[in-house]
Amino acid sequence: MEPAERIVRHFQEDLNALQKRLIEMAGLAEERVRVAIEGLVARDVSALDRITTGDLPINELHIEIDNRAFTLLALHQPMAADLRTIVAAVKINTDLERVGDLAVNIAEAGRRYLAHPPVKPLIDIPRMGDIAQQMLRSALDAFIRRDTALAQRVLDEDDRVDSLKDQVFRELLTYMLQDPSTIAPALDLVLVSRHLERIADHATNIGEDVIFMVSARDVRHGAATLPRK
Amino acid sequence: MEPAERIVRHFQEDLNALQKRLIEMAGLAEERVRVAIEGLVARDVSALDRITTGDLPINELHIEIDNRAFTLLALHQPMAADLRTIVAAVKINTDLERVGDLAVNIAEAGRRYLAHPPVKPLIDIPRMGDIAQQMLRSALDAFIRRDTALAQRVLDEDDRVDSLKDQVFRELLTYMLQDPSTIAPALDLVLVSRHLERIADHATNIGEDVIFMVSARDVRHGAATLPRK
Repeated sequence: MEPAERIVRHFQEDLNALQKRLIEMAGLAEERVRVAIEGLVARDVSALDRITTGDLPINELHIEIDNRAFTLLALHQPMAADLRTIVAAVKINTDLERVGDLAVNIAEAGRRYLAHPPVKPLIDIPRMGDIAQQMLRSALDAFIRRDTALAQRVLDEDDRVDSLKDQVFRELLTYMLQDPSTIAPALDLVLVSRHLERIADHATNIGEDVIFMVSARDVRHGAATLPRK
Repeated sequence: MEPAERIVRHFQEDLNALQKRLIEMAGLAEERVRVAIEGLVARDVSALDRITTGDLPINELHIEIDNRAFTLLALHQPMAADLRTIVAAVKINTDLERVGDLAVNIAEAGRRYLAHPPVKPLIDIPRMGDIAQQMLRSALDAFIRRDTALAQRVLDEDDRVDSLKDQVFRELLTYMLQDPSTIAPALDLVLVSRHLERIADHATNIGEDVIFMVSARDVRHGAATLPRK
């Protein structure tokens, strides 16, 4: 094997390893959101405690992925499409780390919520959670498969989460106005719905990064133009 | 001038231009937070409307800075410290764009708040706003001057914002419990304080990126270690 070929092969292996770690990171982040919401719905304090204290693996992975991306950039000085893939990986990594933090925020609000009697049966919040998780999964699939149509569908889903968030807010406001004893726990449910909305926003960011990565077309801020040079 | 020297000089000019645009971006983001909070305190609806509708310049700058960073990576394939600076710029750019979005969120909550009689004199919220803006300014100064001590001070400030946020929450909860007519507007103030907390978090992220950029030392997740290779 020629040296140049060996470097190319090494690069592809390293890039594949980076992508594999990013999928693991996404799996961890998604799992933590799922457990936090399930713990809230099932009133399972110990599940929520596992989330608030268990962010070491995801934080370690966050740093490892960043370092892998840096090493790839420094050693191989990739161009064009490969460069866009690695920069996208750095951004996606940041988004996933924030999703992990938001799972902790959900679990913390959930812990406070469970100190009170239930305000209402939780229906829209787990639905928001399901959509947000699905958006994360699809955004990562879109990244791996370089599938801009799938990434676009993630962007479209964001409106559904926003309207559920508004619905949750209006409904909880009604409870609070009718019975002031529900104010404190209802506020924590409002916060949970905001955290889920932000998770959907991070999935949306990932979808936008995928579209840019694949097509060098910038869809952020409605700017569907080729990037300036 | 030799070709190699010309490329180096070109690189430095492009890197300086990138940093200059990033300072502009930070100035815009900070200004928007300032106007949103001042508009809320002064009950100035038109100031808030300027914020909710005026995010075009910051969004354009966001895309331009990303493209400049890409071009620098692609054309010059920088190593080590320069590479870390450019990747830090990409991350800081993302944080600043989110700060701009959060200014819009503050202005939107402010608009809803102003549809009601005032709940209370606003003292802690403008204080949180001042600290968050100062953190942003210091984080950017630290980036430009490669000043890790200043970046560390930004990280330390984050606790003050968090404790003000908790204080705002407890106080507003008291108002809501005493007088249900304050629930809707008080909720919007809670949201404003959460948005400010997130702005401080973005300043903290920037501080962490500066420390990594300068020292290749990772302080995220308390991981004060050299990055793995």
